Amino acid sequence: MHAMVRRTHEERVLAALRAGGALSRSELARRVGLSRTTLSEIAASLLRRGAVVVVDTDAATRSGSGRPAERLALDPAAGQFLGVDFGHRRVHVAVADASHEIIASGAAPYDDESWTTRIGLALGLVDRLVAREGLHFGALQAVGIGVPGPYAGDSSGGSPVAWHRHATPGGLHDAFADRFGTPVFVDNNTRLAALAEAVSRPDGPTDLIYVRLSDGVGGGLVVAGSLVRGARGFSGELGHVTADPGGVTCRCGKRGCLETIASVPAILATCRDRGVELTDLRDLAVAVDRADPVVEAVLREVGTTLGRVLGAAAMVLDPVDVVVGGEVAHVAPVLVEQAAATLRYELHSVPTDTPRVVRASRLGDHGGALGALAALFHESPLLAGYAAPEAVAGHQSRRSAR
Amino acid sequence: MHAMVRRTHEERVLAALRAGGALSRSELARRVGLSRTTLSEIAASLLRRGAVVVVDTDAATRSGSGRPAERLALDPAAGQFLGVDFGHRRVHVAVADASHEIIASGAAPYDDESWTTRIGLALGLVDRLVAREGLHFGALQAVGIGVPGPYAGDSSGGSPVAWHRHATPGGLHDAFADRFGTPVFVDNNTRLAALAEAVSRPDGPTDLIYVRLSDGVGGGLVVAGSLVRGARGFSGELGHVTADPGGVTCRCGKRGCLETIASVPAILATCRDRGVELTDLRDLAVAVDRADPVVEAVLREVGTTLGRVLGAAAMVLDPVDVVVGGEVAHVAPVLVEQAAATLRYELHSVPTDTPRVVRASRLGDHGGALGALAALFHESPLLAGYAAPEAVAGHQSRRSAR
Repeated sequence: MHAMVRRTHEERVLAALRAGGALSRSELARRVGLSRTTLSEIAASLLRRGAVVVVDTDAATRSGSGRPAERLALDPAAGQFLGVDFGHRRVHVAVADASHEIIASGAAPYDDESWTTRIGLALGLVDRLVAREGLHFGALQAVGIGVPGPYAGDSSGGSPVAWHRHATPGGLHDAFADRFGTPVFVDNNTRLAALAEAVSRPDGPTDLIYVRLSDGVGGGLVVAGSLVRGARGFSGELGHVTADPGGVTCRCGKRGCLETIASVPAILATCRDRGVELTDLRDLAVAVDRADPVVEAVLREVGTTLGRVLGAAAMVLDPVDVVVGGEVAHVAPVLVEQAAATLRYELHSVPTDTPRVVRASRLGDHGGALGALAALFHESPLLAGYAAPEAVAGHQSRRSAR
Repeated sequence: MHAMVRRTHEERVLAALRAGGALSRSELARRVGLSRTTLSEIAASLLRRGAVVVVDTDAATRSGSGRPAERLALDPAAGQFLGVDFGHRRVHVAVADASHEIIASGAAPYDDESWTTRIGLALGLVDRLVAREGLHFGALQAVGIGVPGPYAGDSSGGSPVAWHRHATPGGLHDAFADRFGTPVFVDNNTRLAALAEAVSRPDGPTDLIYVRLSDGVGGGLVVAGSLVRGARGFSGELGHVTADPGGVTCRCGKRGCLETIASVPAILATCRDRGVELTDLRDLAVAVDRADPVVEAVLREVGTTLGRVLGAAAMVLDPVDVVVGGEVAHVAPVLVEQAAATLRYELHSVPTDTPRVVRASRLGDHGGALGALAALFHESPLLAGYAAPEAVAGHQSRRSAR
């Protein structure tokens, strides 16, 4: 094989492993578009040089019969990746090696709204993990950080969203860059959770609309396998789509945003307005369990409104899945059921099976931190709109050359 | 320069010219990511072999001072491309050469709803153009066809949208493929018009939401520089987003779709309901000119509804532009103004200049045919979701390798 051809092949195999974690030789051959023979030759060379290692076999996951196939991955020691998710009430941290294995993770709660405190807590948490697990961050490749609220990028000095109570400071990026001396990638944590959902699918990234019902309501989009950033970094703001033009005033200043109806505080407030005193999600879970008819009616109404907003978005985007996240989706399945029913009606004119409406379950609380890691592993290919113009040009020429 | 490196560079230059039409050496160097020196060397070799020709200079379009630069393009004789747009009342045809120059175009009206008749008319029109312009279709590279209504692709045997009165027959693709013996690409014509709008921008493809108000209401999306197809080929269906849940029944079966409010027949019907007899767009234009207060109120109401639907979509997608197309956008500017004002309100929570709301003007009636040509020129890079998995893998590896 010509040396230059070989190097190109090697780069593509390494990129596939960087994006996909551990893969068998057949999976690699398919993803990279090489024959099994060529792939084996490339893999042998990479194994010999120690760039790639055999991590396990696919015995646990394979569906067919026959001998289990070895799975290859980048040498785990070749690099570590740090994912950080600043939630509303706590920070989650996850460290992954180059084979996508989570080697350490933890969380620290906070009440304080100050970002100085939060950043300090996060760095302290990382220190404790490093000490406990005996990690060596000399191999740290990059840091991905999820933050609440819209995030328009560092060029604007952090989040310029003044009305958002967790407005991200411009110093966040620098605090981590200075500390670890690596590239730091910051984005909205709900968007990163959408990416984590999309890449966790067995068939690779799936086009989806993700909405998270929590203290606020946020969302993210994956289109054509790529996380959509938007022209100004504000895509996926489902929480501030107007759901009821004459509704109550939202913290953003508009009336009747989805968030004023479908956030957890809004749901609890509506229940209270109808005479059912609920103070938190646990109370709501109890009320759902005892089949409280007032609470069920409220959840159905919220589900209908959510289904309308998601239906409009799905009509425009035609996704594979619509994913509803946030604890309330688990506590109150009737809400998700009703949203799914309304969405089916809204997509009535599209003569196919409508998108599946599914609960975001698997990633749980770590969605943002795992999404931050996913963003690092996948780099630009999953980040539509993040790519520099040259990358788009390169992409274009490669596709046209097919 | 190594022969293989040279060939890769040549392929990228040819791809850039295929996608971008005539370009100067500096533009080419920037798009392909090569130095001016390397680019000049590659260009010289392509010019020598006749693959590329000098078509003109950028004297007419350049903004700076200095000597006008030569613009290079693929040899126009190297291939022709046929764009066909089946509108509601006529078919448009445009033939472009490899330098993106339209070398022939024409239209033929029809009343008949039969697709056999329409296809016959289109093929006859092409024959007349060929005869009149002395074209040789030996160099025909591909045919792009726009059709009204949702189009889910040929795999489903044409459009399965039974309620749509212009449901596309499965035989459309084959009729052109058999006749011309080239690849044939079929898509919804509004989506193709969106692509034509996006690629006609001076800075290259712009992220936009495009809506066309006509006999029906359709739309298209360009996200991260790519036309969005959707998981099932149904993206951009803005006309069937519910704008008024209790509204009148739409031909699709739902209630209060945007199309029941903002299509041209719906606008005329609302004016008639309020006592102003209008039979067509010309009547509407006259009423707008005489500042009829009833008509103006109707147009403001329609604009508000349109702005809400576009606002929700823009909140989710964060596009650069929102483009309103269809003749009524020109006849009734107050409608577009009001939609822009409502959209500004809807995007209130996003602390940036909102997307510009612009009228789709430049492409006029030929939008669909030009969009079909744009789809051919740009092939997969502009068609997110159209690409085969291998292309995505290739794209990924290239970006990761940066």
